[in-house]
Amino acid sequence: MTRLLVLNPNTTQAVTDLMMRSAASVAAPGVELSAVTAPRGVPYISNRCEALIGGAIALEMLAEVAPAPDAAILAAFGDPGLFALREAFDFPVIGVSEAAMLAACMLGGKFLIVSFTSAMLGWYRDCVAAHGLEARCAGVVALDLPFGALDMVQGAQGDQLIAFARAEAQARDAACVIFGGAPLAGLAVRARERLGRPVIDPVAAAVKLAEALAALRPMKATAGSFARPPGKSSIGLSPALANHLRRDHVE
Amino acid sequence: MTRLLVLNPNTTQAVTDLMMRSAASVAAPGVELSAVTAPRGVPYISNRCEALIGGAIALEMLAEVAPAPDAAILAAFGDPGLFALREAFDFPVIGVSEAAMLAACMLGGKFLIVSFTSAMLGWYRDCVAAHGLEARCAGVVALDLPFGALDMVQGAQGDQLIAFARAEAQARDAACVIFGGAPLAGLAVRARERLGRPVIDPVAAAVKLAEALAALRPMKATAGSFARPPGKSSIGLSPALANHLRRDHVE
Amino acid sequence: MTRLLVLNPNTTQAVTDLMMRSAASVAAPGVELSAVTAPRGVPYISNRCEALIGGAIALEMLAEVAPAPDAAILAAFGDPGLFALREAFDFPVIGVSEAAMLAACMLGGKFLIVSFTSAMLGWYRDCVAAHGLEARCAGVVALDLPFGALDMVQGAQGDQLIAFARAEAQARDAACVIFGGAPLAGLAVRARERLGRPVIDPVAAAVKLAEALAALRPMKATAGSFARPPGKSSIGLSPALANHLRRDHVE
Amino acid sequence: MTRLLVLNPNTTQAVTDLMMRSAASVAAPGVELSAVTAPRGVPYISNRCEALIGGAIALEMLAEVAPAPDAAILAAFGDPGLFALREAFDFPVIGVSEAAMLAACMLGGKFLIVSFTSAMLGWYRDCVAAHGLEARCAGVVALDLPFGALDMVQGAQGDQLIAFARAEAQARDAACVIFGGAPLAGLAVRARERLGRPVIDPVAAAVKLAEALAALRPMKATAGSFARPPGKSSIGLSPALANHLRRDHVE
Amino acid sequence: MTRLLVLNPNTTQAVTDLMMRSAASVAAPGVELSAVTAPRGVPYISNRCEALIGGAIALEMLAEVAPAPDAAILAAFGDPGLFALREAFDFPVIGVSEAAMLAACMLGGKFLIVSFTSAMLGWYRDCVAAHGLEARCAGVVALDLPFGALDMVQGAQGDQLIAFARAEAQARDAACVIFGGAPLAGLAVRARERLGRPVIDPVAAAVKLAEALAALRPMKATAGSFARPPGKSSIGLSPALANHLRRDHVE
Amino acid sequence: MTRLLVLNPNTTQAVTDLMMRSAASVAAPGVELSAVTAPRGVPYISNRCEALIGGAIALEMLAEVAPAPDAAILAAFGDPGLFALREAFDFPVIGVSEAAMLAACMLGGKFLIVSFTSAMLGWYRDCVAAHGLEARCAGVVALDLPFGALDMVQGAQGDQLIAFARAEAQARDAACVIFGGAPLAGLAVRARERLGRPVIDPVAAAVKLAEALAALRPMKATAGSFARPPGKSSIGLSPALANHLRRDHVE
Repeated sequence: MTRLLVLNPNTTQAVTDLMMRSAASVAAPGVELSAVTAPRGVPYISNRCEALIGGAIALEMLAEVAPAPDAAILAAFGDPGLFALREAFDFPVIGVSEAAMLAACMLGGKFLIVSFTSAMLGWYRDCVAAHGLEARCAGVVALDLPFGALDMVQGAQGDQLIAFARAEAQARDAACVIFGGAPLAGLAVRARERLGRPVIDPVAAAVKLAEALAALRPMKATAGSFARPPGKSSIGLSPALANHLRRDHVE
Repeated sequence: MTRLLVLNPNTTQAVTDLMMRSAASVAAPGVELSAVTAPRGVPYISNRCEALIGGAIALEMLAEVAPAPDAAILAAFGDPGLFALREAFDFPVIGVSEAAMLAACMLGGKFLIVSFTSAMLGWYRDCVAAHGLEARCAGVVALDLPFGALDMVQGAQGDQLIAFARAEAQARDAACVIFGGAPLAGLAVRARERLGRPVIDPVAAAVKLAEALAALRPMKATAGSFARPPGKSSIGLSPALANHLRRDHVE
Repeated sequence: MTRLLVLNPNTTQAVTDLMMRSAASVAAPGVELSAVTAPRGVPYISNRCEALIGGAIALEMLAEVAPAPDAAILAAFGDPGLFALREAFDFPVIGVSEAAMLAACMLGGKFLIVSFTSAMLGWYRDCVAAHGLEARCAGVVALDLPFGALDMVQGAQGDQLIAFARAEAQARDAACVIFGGAPLAGLAVRARERLGRPVIDPVAAAVKLAEALAALRPMKATAGSFARPPGKSSIGLSPALANHLRRDHVE
Repeated sequence: MTRLLVLNPNTTQAVTDLMMRSAASVAAPGVELSAVTAPRGVPYISNRCEALIGGAIALEMLAEVAPAPDAAILAAFGDPGLFALREAFDFPVIGVSEAAMLAACMLGGKFLIVSFTSAMLGWYRDCVAAHGLEARCAGVVALDLPFGALDMVQGAQGDQLIAFARAEAQARDAACVIFGGAPLAGLAVRARERLGRPVIDPVAAAVKLAEALAALRPMKATAGSFARPPGKSSIGLSPALANHLRRDHVE
Repeated sequence: MTRLLVLNPNTTQAVTDLMMRSAASVAAPGVELSAVTAPRGVPYISNRCEALIGGAIALEMLAEVAPAPDAAILAAFGDPGLFALREAFDFPVIGVSEAAMLAACMLGGKFLIVSFTSAMLGWYRDCVAAHGLEARCAGVVALDLPFGALDMVQGAQGDQLIAFARAEAQARDAACVIFGGAPLAGLAVRARERLGRPVIDPVAAAVKLAEALAALRPMKATAGSFARPPGKSSIGLSPALANHLRRDHVE
Repeated sequence: MTRLLVLNPNTTQAVTDLMMRSAASVAAPGVELSAVTAPRGVPYISNRCEALIGGAIALEMLAEVAPAPDAAILAAFGDPGLFALREAFDFPVIGVSEAAMLAACMLGGKFLIVSFTSAMLGWYRDCVAAHGLEARCAGVVALDLPFGALDMVQGAQGDQLIAFARAEAQARDAACVIFGGAPLAGLAVRARERLGRPVIDPVAAAVKLAEALAALRPMKATAGSFARPPGKSSIGLSPALANHLRRDHVE
């Protein structure tokens, strides 16, 4: 059995639930999915500042998880704190943006990332660059219609987002489209036919790539820049995180 | 049930068998693996010229496959003809180099590609560049000891290759190592502990990523540069390939 | 006397004839031009799949050429199989895209590639990238009017293509324009005055650069990744190509 | 009068003191320097995980500062959380790595970053990339001798670090050297003569560039991806940070 | 006291005066600004050819300066001859384009360069590339309205330039704007509020960064590619420049 | 008949003579070669400062040439002032570095540039970057043995330079070697056999590519950034150059 943990660094349980539906729809038989929602932070991370806060909280959350999952999925588009999580823990940690982009690479050419608000674009572009995937990215674009509650976006603007994505993909010769941001989780399925190009759902991609990584079982690095750092004392951090940094718990 | 086809564009059945062992060791329950070995071409592709020949033969081979698999794996490091295959067929086609590199990306930082002969390096470097992954590649290196039969390389030089990979990964700060070339299929498992860094087996990675892609079911592009080209007549090609180009067969 | 071979990997003799007119218009005195047209393949290569087929056929065609020319010109925009041909033969092989891009470089700034159909753009962009010339390319664009027979494109759409190229070159600050694709061979001459920017004809550029290379007589590499590979057996290839791979013929 | 705040995201007061000495040695007349040391976190940030923690703590620290300084200096090489801080606050925030690299750019060619431990290299390389300055970086290297207490490194290994930097700068044709990491603050002055190349002290550079920015008074962005995000509620964050996110305090 | 020399390689005294006003408005107390205007050359450098002429004249001008300033500012957007000046003299030389771009980097994201005539764009783009800052540049654009005398441009087109810059910055997600070209010196101040993004004045930035560099006192390189070349004889150059090249004068 | 002008921006006639021998050895029948040697400047340009001086003198020299040649060759490795010359004159101007690099591109893979002194490396690297050809360059390296008169270098160190180039090309997988610097003109012929890789002589390549360009007759740009600038007055320039800038002479 493979145990995958979906870590939502947002505090909104409804976002976790939405993502778990995407996750469950593709998980292989024998995969056990569980989820944790951030106990503190912001309802929905949408810029660099909140990503920094959310990333640090994700560290605390993972430090509390026991027993260790076979792989963890960092379930916020933009992958807040991903490389730090990857360095600090012994099991693989995969970001949903990362998973979507890597899955898109397998379809050839370049991918287009589409959001519902340009507030996210700067941070998303930083994310593409941090993954060294700018050479595969045809653009990061937003439709930017006014919207009310986040959980209404997909319903209210779904058709317009699909039409927008179609036009942008055509203009930029993108081979594939990724809808970024949890409120768009699942839109991929509905968009597929009407876009003329394949669409990758980030959460679904992350589940399948996490399964893949869990099966490939690449050892945790013991040398180099992704090895787990040596134990270190700290002040004023959450007990579990402080323990983890000190490497006191049994590994 | 997911049906994956392992397509070996080399004519050597033993190479197919070796790769199928790697493939079988990681395939999920419910995945049916089958393989085809090139009926013509060279025993083992090892340069750009042979990659061109092998890529064109891979086209012929895929055109003969019926019924269509859920995904095909192009099982020669260097991914000969991959983008053409991806464009021409309605099911996903994944290269073993591509799969190894994308899986390596999920481990962070840069990957190192290690071969047993520098004859392959120019072609392998072309492959990394064609995938737009140079920003994630710490180097493409070869140990270059004299060797006899290809199927003896891993046995005779395995330890030296591991030591070489270890030193190069350290010097180049590679987070992960990929052994390239079918004669090294399976060396990943043995190398893992001694390298201090995770090792990705290309064939195993391709099987897991092909499973992932089959499950994600991204529609074949009907627009853009990876859509299947319109029907075209030809002269002197294999009957199956000519049919495929003409788009005469039922799809 | 310098003997240049124009190798057309398309099966259409009329395309060969059109290109030979461009070639003949610039060839220096004392240069003997000859041409071969693909005996099999597709009438006109226009995507990655057909480029793979055509590239492999080009290998067969060059393997049959005797005596060796002073240089060969691969006369299909997109340079199908170019690096493999260059590796495999002892005389220089130059692609028409490559020649056009390198000649354009001598005019400063960036070049713009203009096609008559967006079907070709993905493959053309791959070609620019494969030559490592993305830093010199202002764009690869197509006008995309409906057209009938290929040999009518230049006549029917010539003026519109020139106006389109003029506007795109202005918008992208391209210092120079290249019309790509054999059906546009010769359009350069007519476009020159009206574009306000120099125009390079790919076939003409290839003839002059092939003459240059023939005169410079850079030895064929005997080491490194463009040296000719050692002899190898094969199965089911054309007799001439099999011989060439085996290195049985006198060199 | 210009008020500059030196923000040390490490918990070690001695590191703050060391950096303040560098800062004071170059501050212009009329510049008032103050410092804050992290009240919680780790003694000395030395990897991605600790940088994430320290970056989030830096946010808390800046949210508590009143009145706002004319500019803040994020005083940890690697610039933990810099872009988030820059986005979130109305005054300029400058990183010491950033300042050192930009000052080095004014000396021409490429800079070399030298550390005393390779544990830091992965994180430092991420930092260079995040600033888009890879084209100006000749390398990120470490001497990696064993060391005891951090505050002994400069005394014990100073001469060896200088000799190492000299050799690496020569081999990589670096026009300028940056010693990275607070324990090396001030080494620049001593190294200058013996390196044959200019040396930039990160903290000193940050003070001068912060002065420059304070004088240039570029307005805080009100649009685009570095504008301050709209107010947002949160759970469980420090009161000052929660207030800042909510934008409740007077601005 | 810090002595900064503003070197105007144009022959127009009014341009020098305009730039000195920008300079004086930000210079720190205790900074002594002086200026030299080119005694020969063109009234206003606006292309690569004139930049080459002006760069060589700047060399002559600097060779005549005595005593040496603490730093020199090359006061023509495009930085004509900057790297040669930097190599040849013992005091720091900073270009106004360079200073504007580096100051802009401290504001995060990418900068946009705006000119009043597209005649300058090719040369300006070369400048961005020569500084290795293409990764930080969102574009180099011009409004291109007809204009009469250069000193009327800012008055006549100021509002339109600001509106144009605003729209382009929005479309390209530039975090910051730089108005390039001496006739726009000082426009930054007026534009600030209306752009919604910070604006950097090149001359002002150069003064502050020159002050910073003068205070940091990085030694002149004595090794590597920015060391001053050994003495060399010459024919027909200005006496001061010939002396400087011969290294005859006291240093 | 094609008239090519070899413009030597160095003042040493012997260097002109050496380069003319290389040029004459490859010029086609019917090509008339003439040469001009700089009447002022330095004996041999070897750094950025001298390149700036030499570039400006090359402008003066070309302005005096009448009648206009079919193409001019800027005969100093490093291509001092090339883009300015190209912009300012109506006939094509080709640099010897540029020609060597573009000819090398036709041989596949990457080229290695070898010099006899590291003093030149910084300037040469700037040149590769200015041509946008870093993606094709395997390195710029120097042997750096002490040498006496420049015209003795090739004789005294030829064998050592060839051995050095061989080792470096092997280590960096360069497909081709370019010896840079006039004192090495002609070394290519002697090195060919012993290097195992093709060698390009810069002057010879420039002659052949200039012939090519003259035959292709791409019109001078009348729009865009390489169009000749409009007439402009100047002060204190050479009469011929002032005339040329004013566009007074008949064109």
